Amino acid sequence: MLESTRNLFAKQIAVFFTAIFCFAAPAVAQDVLPSWNDGDARSSIVDFVTAVTTEGGPNYVAPADRVATFDNDGTLWSEQPYYFQLAFALDRIKALAPDHPEWQDTEPFKSVLAGDLKGVAASGKKGLAQIIAASHTGMTTDEFAQIVSDWISSATHPQTGKPYTEMIYQPMLELLDYLRANDFEVYIVSGGGIEFMRPWTEEVYGIPPENVVGSSVRTKLQMRNGTPVIVRLPELNFVDDKEGKPIGINQHIGKRPIAAFGNSDGDFEMLDWTTSGDGPRFGLIVHHDDAEREYAYDRDSHIGQLKKGLDLGPQRGWTIVSMKDDWKQIYPDQ
Amino acid sequence: MLESTRNLFAKQIAVFFTAIFCFAAPAVAQDVLPSWNDGDARSSIVDFVTAVTTEGGPNYVAPADRVATFDNDGTLWSEQPYYFQLAFALDRIKALAPDHPEWQDTEPFKSVLAGDLKGVAASGKKGLAQIIAASHTGMTTDEFAQIVSDWISSATHPQTGKPYTEMIYQPMLELLDYLRANDFEVYIVSGGGIEFMRPWTEEVYGIPPENVVGSSVRTKLQMRNGTPVIVRLPELNFVDDKEGKPIGINQHIGKRPIAAFGNSDGDFEMLDWTTSGDGPRFGLIVHHDDAEREYAYDRDSHIGQLKKGLDLGPQRGWTIVSMKDDWKQIYPDQ
Repeated sequence: MLESTRNLFAKQIAVFFTAIFCFAAPAVAQDVLPSWNDGDARSSIVDFVTAVTTEGGPNYVAPADRVATFDNDGTLWSEQPYYFQLAFALDRIKALAPDHPEWQDTEPFKSVLAGDLKGVAASGKKGLAQIIAASHTGMTTDEFAQIVSDWISSATHPQTGKPYTEMIYQPMLELLDYLRANDFEVYIVSGGGIEFMRPWTEEVYGIPPENVVGSSVRTKLQMRNGTPVIVRLPELNFVDDKEGKPIGINQHIGKRPIAAFGNSDGDFEMLDWTTSGDGPRFGLIVHHDDAEREYAYDRDSHIGQLKKGLDLGPQRGWTIVSMKDDWKQIYPDQ
Repeated sequence: MLESTRNLFAKQIAVFFTAIFCFAAPAVAQDVLPSWNDGDARSSIVDFVTAVTTEGGPNYVAPADRVATFDNDGTLWSEQPYYFQLAFALDRIKALAPDHPEWQDTEPFKSVLAGDLKGVAASGKKGLAQIIAASHTGMTTDEFAQIVSDWISSATHPQTGKPYTEMIYQPMLELLDYLRANDFEVYIVSGGGIEFMRPWTEEVYGIPPENVVGSSVRTKLQMRNGTPVIVRLPELNFVDDKEGKPIGINQHIGKRPIAAFGNSDGDFEMLDWTTSGDGPRFGLIVHHDDAEREYAYDRDSHIGQLKKGLDLGPQRGWTIVSMKDDWKQIYPDQ
């Protein structure tokens, strides 16, 4: 290159980067998290992200270590009146019933088919295991992904009538975006089934299959027509809840997160392990206190019980989000 | 912006992108894989990568689905005269021996301490399990990572005297780079221990902890001085070998790879599952046939046995790499 051409080129690059910088400048406080009201919860998030991304600052964290983990049920989407994965299981039993005439007279299937949730509950853990086995296992992993995709794109919530994927929290979507824009790697770490979530988390949350950690059943490799397939077995492999969350994170990610987000005591150990590491750490609990716009439940709830987190979270420096006060909006606009 | 400014800006962007494109044009055939001799093996790799990255072409694969999985022992680094992780275990037993005077008279430890590998082998699976338990478990995951890091940065190979991390294959490093440059997400999927590999794979191969899948022991969350830690237990959790490889991939990644790379029959199921998917697929086996520069072994080897792959791989369209003929160089220059 001639000297003059090189100079021209350097100048063009400089202009270009200046322009890019103006368009894509780091989001300032007013631009991010628009569905969050001003207040301690929002500030704590912005302060933490600012601290770990400020190069040369005392709390700077390299991008490779900016790992954030999110619970799903009750943290990214609703979980009442029962976990959405249970709704999937019940719908699946109904869809399979024509092939199982014996279910009409056998619990827990009889209650499922009669829409009798109390009857289902009365069948206890054994009944639930039978429902999960019948609805979630026996097929290949590819077949199961298709079944889940078909269901999630058509099923609706028993109370709101909304598709389940519209019962996700707009403020949390903004939080996921904000973290990713700041070079965080964002994971779901849920007690829900890993293969129940993977078919749709990318489209709904922008979280790809490899960033989803969850509970699982055992699988085995089997030859079908000379081709290997992976078949789902009616045996539990891993429960990604409570102490299972740090263990699942360690197994899948191999790094301790610097930020963790949950809503129930099933997330306590994940937040505790995350925030007890060295350096800047962040823990956040979504408190369901908005009976009008969503649901209000905590200490005595059978689903998403939150007691330890309310009692011990604040003294650990965790942010407790009031859905009622901290969120302008719950679900995305349709 | 004024119209003229906008035009100038547009022109500058155009110039800039043209310049960038000239500097960062896709690597052409002569530039990539420099340690690979011209031949069918090298061509098959370049043809596959070109096909799946050619937008609008019949075999184009979106970047999100460009998943490639690599075995480690014998595929990315050497595995003779015994797996390097066994060398770690033996060294660890020696380091711990002063605290265990009883080992002087107890097999398999007695043989380990005497450097008697035949004696170790004679202790069978039970002896090996005892060695693994004593060397790999009882500590926290953080402590284990430190122990591994210390070992890998100081230990040397019993025959070459090289650090183990210099017994990696230069042509495979280039292959990893080539795939990443073409937007592949590259994973290790090894029968070796997941936590034995994670402390060093990023520095050595550029593969971060979250992209490492391997065998594991069970772990549990424990409180130590009021702080949660993860402790390694002397119980097997998962064997990531043979049919365990597709299962481990499905569990960790949640996608079927489009390319898989191995060297032994422990990789057969991974390659078979990978290449039996729809669309363009690639399977490659590194054949150890270079007694002069590395090792020569296959059908009858106790380590890295390769029989099924040689018999069935070619008819499945897999590339068989001759280390002797296809590689200009085995290890990186020091």
